[in-house]
Amino acid sequence: MAGTVFFSVSMSLDGFIAPESPQELMGQQWMELQRWVFGQRFFRENLSLGVGGEEGRDNEIVRETFERTGASVMGKRMFDAGEHAWPEAAPFHTPVFVVTHEKRDPWERPGGTTFHFVDDGIGPALARAREAAGDRDVRIAGGGATILQHMNAGLVDEFTIALSPVLFGSGIRLFEGVDAGRVALEQVRSEPSAKVTHLTYAVRER
Amino acid sequence: MAGTVFFSVSMSLDGFIAPESPQELMGQQWMELQRWVFGQRFFRENLSLGVGGEEGRDNEIVRETFERTGASVMGKRMFDAGEHAWPEAAPFHTPVFVVTHEKRDPWERPGGTTFHFVDDGIGPALARAREAAGDRDVRIAGGGATILQHMNAGLVDEFTIALSPVLFGSGIRLFEGVDAGRVALEQVRSEPSAKVTHLTYAVRER
Repeated sequence: MAGTVFFSVSMSLDGFIAPESPQELMGQQWMELQRWVFGQRFFRENLSLGVGGEEGRDNEIVRETFERTGASVMGKRMFDAGEHAWPEAAPFHTPVFVVTHEKRDPWERPGGTTFHFVDDGIGPALARAREAAGDRDVRIAGGGATILQHMNAGLVDEFTIALSPVLFGSGIRLFEGVDAGRVALEQVRSEPSAKVTHLTYAVRER
Repeated sequence: MAGTVFFSVSMSLDGFIAPESPQELMGQQWMELQRWVFGQRFFRENLSLGVGGEEGRDNEIVRETFERTGASVMGKRMFDAGEHAWPEAAPFHTPVFVVTHEKRDPWERPGGTTFHFVDDGIGPALARAREAAGDRDVRIAGGGATILQHMNAGLVDEFTIALSPVLFGSGIRLFEGVDAGRVALEQVRSEPSAKVTHLTYAVRER
């Protein structure tokens, strides 16, 4: 009984999910893109940013996304950016499968996150994540290139975008290089909050 | 008492509002982008596509957009594409100011649309449109380049996007070349319908 394979990201209205270089990650627009999530109680506690925070629908959505996730798949670039940025108790609390060319032993963190390094491609990484997730869902955590690889390979069942009221103008586009002739979408849910709009789509083959 | 200057377009989830060439306008993805509007009663009657059609919230939104508009500003490319495609009673029923390098006498159509050709730039075109609109709003009708010129010149007060569940992969991006360092957005309204999400933003200077 494999669960759903999904991703969940914050996207600017002009389609960007990250600045061009990781060094700009803390720039003004990036902060605006992510502003809605940084104030949420669940997010703050999970990333050890401090206690307290908002507890409305946005907070529930962050919690639901976390709770449905039984395992994650992640690209090496995202792992590299996070390795030194995440708190010691990394915020996943499940197995995480890192797609990489590098061989490396599993890296176990306090709090239940174990990073497994998979060097034979996205298919095997996803298979292992599905097995580890059991009845829960598999999240393609990112970055953009890894998400797109899964989309174009027909491996994503649905996704959620927190559409932020910000324009980047440049950076990494979520759908750059998407196989538009193959991927069809169905609008599943569209839920406005005060700061963003949470959009959920199912992915279909054309 | 000048009204609001706005635009209202259908956009794909990956940020496109039109295919690369006007010849592809009737392609499959383009039709998917516009599918939500083609079934609406008001839209069908206004474009002489036939009577009947849907009468729900989507239809009201199309009607509200029409009724608030006292005058439109349009680029030459959009005019050229529409000149032979619109019905004789062109669907604006107000003055339309076409930004062009060409000198041409006003072109009056049955039903209240008169096209005025303005050869001294977007500033004068918008000023004339404001005056013609009176208390109603001015719509920057399109295309993408004309909308962006107005955005980057700080002339747009707000805009509405009907975000369609379709990926184009290529074409004309609404926000390509936007001056992201200058334009800030505020989410005003986000209204899901069965087929699309209607997103309204106010434009602010950073």
